[in-house]
Amino acid sequence: MRISKLVGERIKETPNSATARSHSLLLRAGFIKQVSNGIFTFLPPAQRVNLKMQNIIREEMNKIDGQEVLMPVVMPKEIWEKSGRYFSIGNEMVRFKDRNDHDMLLGMTHEEAAVHTCLNVLKSYDQLPVMIYQFQTKFRDEARPRAGLLRVREFTMKDGYSFHSSQEDLNKYYQKVYEAYFRIFKRLGMKNLIAVKSDSGMMGGDIADEFQLLVDAGEDDIVMCPHCDYKANMEVATSNLEQINFKDEPLEEIFTGSAKTIDEVCDYLKIKPCQTIKAVCYAVINSDELVICFIRGDKEINEPKLKKLLSKEVVITDLTGTELVKGNIGCKDLNIKNAIILYDNSLKGLCGLVTGANKEGFHIKGVNMARDIKPENYYDIAKVSEGEKCPICNQPLEIKKGIEVGNIFQLGTKYTLPMEMKIHTQDGSEINPIMGCYGIGVGRCLASVVEESSDEKGIIWPMSIAPWQIYLCPLRMDDEKIKAEAENLYQTLSQDFEVLYDDRNVSAGIKFADSELMGIPIRVVISPRSLENNQAEITIRKTGEKTFVELENLKYKLNEIIKSLS
Amino acid sequence: MRISKLVGERIKETPNSATARSHSLLLRAGFIKQVSNGIFTFLPPAQRVNLKMQNIIREEMNKIDGQEVLMPVVMPKEIWEKSGRYFSIGNEMVRFKDRNDHDMLLGMTHEEAAVHTCLNVLKSYDQLPVMIYQFQTKFRDEARPRAGLLRVREFTMKDGYSFHSSQEDLNKYYQKVYEAYFRIFKRLGMKNLIAVKSDSGMMGGDIADEFQLLVDAGEDDIVMCPHCDYKANMEVATSNLEQINFKDEPLEEIFTGSAKTIDEVCDYLKIKPCQTIKAVCYAVINSDELVICFIRGDKEINEPKLKKLLSKEVVITDLTGTELVKGNIGCKDLNIKNAIILYDNSLKGLCGLVTGANKEGFHIKGVNMARDIKPENYYDIAKVSEGEKCPICNQPLEIKKGIEVGNIFQLGTKYTLPMEMKIHTQDGSEINPIMGCYGIGVGRCLASVVEESSDEKGIIWPMSIAPWQIYLCPLRMDDEKIKAEAENLYQTLSQDFEVLYDDRNVSAGIKFADSELMGIPIRVVISPRSLENNQAEITIRKTGEKTFVELENLKYKLNEIIKSLS
Repeated sequence: MRISKLVGERIKETPNSATARSHSLLLRAGFIKQVSNGIFTFLPPAQRVNLKMQNIIREEMNKIDGQEVLMPVVMPKEIWEKSGRYFSIGNEMVRFKDRNDHDMLLGMTHEEAAVHTCLNVLKSYDQLPVMIYQFQTKFRDEARPRAGLLRVREFTMKDGYSFHSSQEDLNKYYQKVYEAYFRIFKRLGMKNLIAVKSDSGMMGGDIADEFQLLVDAGEDDIVMCPHCDYKANMEVATSNLEQINFKDEPLEEIFTGSAKTIDEVCDYLKIKPCQTIKAVCYAVINSDELVICFIRGDKEINEPKLKKLLSKEVVITDLTGTELVKGNIGCKDLNIKNAIILYDNSLKGLCGLVTGANKEGFHIKGVNMARDIKPENYYDIAKVSEGEKCPICNQPLEIKKGIEVGNIFQLGTKYTLPMEMKIHTQDGSEINPIMGCYGIGVGRCLASVVEESSDEKGIIWPMSIAPWQIYLCPLRMDDEKIKAEAENLYQTLSQDFEVLYDDRNVSAGIKFADSELMGIPIRVVISPRSLENNQAEITIRKTGEKTFVELENLKYKLNEIIKSLS
Repeated sequence: MRISKLVGERIKETPNSATARSHSLLLRAGFIKQVSNGIFTFLPPAQRVNLKMQNIIREEMNKIDGQEVLMPVVMPKEIWEKSGRYFSIGNEMVRFKDRNDHDMLLGMTHEEAAVHTCLNVLKSYDQLPVMIYQFQTKFRDEARPRAGLLRVREFTMKDGYSFHSSQEDLNKYYQKVYEAYFRIFKRLGMKNLIAVKSDSGMMGGDIADEFQLLVDAGEDDIVMCPHCDYKANMEVATSNLEQINFKDEPLEEIFTGSAKTIDEVCDYLKIKPCQTIKAVCYAVINSDELVICFIRGDKEINEPKLKKLLSKEVVITDLTGTELVKGNIGCKDLNIKNAIILYDNSLKGLCGLVTGANKEGFHIKGVNMARDIKPENYYDIAKVSEGEKCPICNQPLEIKKGIEVGNIFQLGTKYTLPMEMKIHTQDGSEINPIMGCYGIGVGRCLASVVEESSDEKGIIWPMSIAPWQIYLCPLRMDDEKIKAEAENLYQTLSQDFEVLYDDRNVSAGIKFADSELMGIPIRVVISPRSLENNQAEITIRKTGEKTFVELENLKYKLNEIIKSLS
């Protein structure tokens, strides 16, 4: 490819719109162009990376007997009605009516379509296990697309769906996919990649693992134990809380004036947040029900845990229209109808606590949970904080930022049961097959690699997915001899390698900057001086290492370097 | 691939829903499954064909310096507003509002997106010519999807867009694509493939060629001259009409009673249809304007020509609400306001004709066009009929059925002008680059190959795009020796070939029928008898030719056959 013809302009300045390193670099290096909020065009360099990534993923999916299919982007309401998701998913799903007034939607994921594909096609236990997968466009109307390709509305996903006649068979296959995913991410050039337990979210099902690339730009919090193998997404992470003992005292109503927040109350009473009971109130969506959560004052509510516990969508409420006294809500003598009241594990066994008095200007101190409140149950609805103890080995936990680049779920019969997919078992009875599903966001992987593999000069592509292997960079293209030699070298090298040829008559500075910004693994420079010695200069993007090589040995040397970088 | 695990069931009976040979065969052989009207899932065998086809097309596009990109399926209204197509395209385009109430649409084609991609990226004449292309999902909400993959609503298209600094440069590049298309269709295994001049339809622009595969299931009429090279889609085809001379007589109003249609009038007056003037009336869509077309009674109106002439969408009207006398409309003394009146070339120079008298029960005879009507212009708005004379060599024309598998258009500045894409020319001025666009419907090609290449037993895949090269077909799988040898052969052959392994313990009849229905080019049978002689039986799907081969020569022989079939 001649850079003079390449669709994809390099830009020096960081665009204002860029909020993540990968976003900025992919825009600046001419890899992507925004079409609308969260919708991008992949320019030729990005599409080259994209195809290489897809081929790696395809190879690994085929190795575990995946069968590639192509299910549609546009689907009719009917197949999403049976699973219930046509109604349960909110406005992230695009719905429209076709010209015949038929309800249609854009696929956000393809569990229903996968069951439809295999319905009446897979009929017997001895056909299973089967896994189908595809690379297909998804559209999710995200409220807040951000950070370039890291959170978009339209994207290509590799999504796979497996069918099993028993839980044991699913477990066995799930483990195979788990291992294939590690191979994939390694081959894509990712380094700090871990698998963590996660919430299954809208997919349903019980067991779920996420593959997280640990980089600063990540928007997920990953709780990790540096001493044992414990790793979990904050959404499902747990910890052993330190036992705190306060003095057990009788209940007493105390004046706290305008002190409302935990910090204000603690300042006023000269106590620590961990001695208070915090109330956090949620409204249930599409309902007038309230949820009031009580949690130790130094802890935060973990909303994914809360939603999963309730099996309801909830949103923080400002209490407008309720009789609750904002800033003075307490768990002692709380009189409210139509509310679910929940207590977090962090309050269990504590005494000497301060809670709101449910009237303006007052709190109650000396609360003994077991004596004064007696909740029927305590629940785990708290976020883990850095330094809390590992639930496995009791050592202090760390929290890191991660990008979810893939996820795998055990779905059970969540889809096969309502969609009435049945198979014959060995004993002649019929069962609903058990499913697993397996996703990788291809574009997000591309951006994640850039997050992890770049420096102040630009991207550093791993050899396996680099858009081109070699940046051929002749200096002084106004020199006829150089130009002739460069053209000749371009033809020769293109026979064996993927070459981006900088055929422009511009300065060495511009050429070097572009080659570094675009992140091509190997740069080959020829100049009047190097040609005098019949040599080319090779520079490795990753290490900056430079070598001079005789032109007649160039192909041999490049092969060697490519092998060592692969 | 083991057939026992293959997602894709073979069915004996032709499904009721199938209206075309390819539709029936692709359903019966387990290649596709319908999800909704005009929306299909590609099962694993079809997706294998699909990927091979895409690779062939990709190779040929890259050979003519195409740069692969990926533009989005979902686009914002804005970029389609500038070109005017947001409004001019009807309900074939899916429009919806996103969660932020923003108008969005599903891409039916990507001219606007291609200009958006290159806007401010291509800036100078010396960057051109440039061609970008993609494989991307399109959605066209067709009124009448039909015939399986031949006319669908959702499909994958290879669409390419080129940019040029001069018409000469476009002409040169257009010719390159034209030749690449022939190479592509040949490599896809198509035989009766021709290029014809066509109408540019909604793409706009002037020059357009279609690539038509001549098969009975085609829905396009192709006008061809068997004597010279003239070929054109009926939409744009012309012919030299035979000069017909009737006796020149004075005008005379005659009673024709209830005779209304051309046939009735001819019966009544004992004349031939070619001696009459037929009136065909259209309403302009979204307007109260009428279009009245007069044409020789034996000819039909060519609606695409008419629409192009008018640059308006029109539809046949039943004349309700007009003062026209149905069945008696004539061109002599026709008094009507707000109507466009057009005369077809077929009437030019004729005399002695019969036309309606514009009153109930009467016609006028003796019409001499030049004497009595004196139209300012005659236009070509007629369909060509079989046997009319070739406009080039005056020999009788033939009409054949074709499937449009690809098309190429010269677009001029139809998109770059309104979207304000400009490039610097050599003399320092600015111009709007000139565009070409180039489409291939991948799924339609797949079905077209099946239309052309199949027999009563099933599909006959060309080797280049066959889902598997070899169908390994052991007989008597209940025999342990056969089973062991088959497994062994499957492993060995899979190292070098793409093998579909029929590992089922079913009859030879079922296995042979499935291998023929699925159209795998080579069948390799081992049976207790063949193993006695240490042989396998090879059958070529296309010819039915059978040979016995020693097992130790099998790989060599298969290589030879694959080469000869490629």
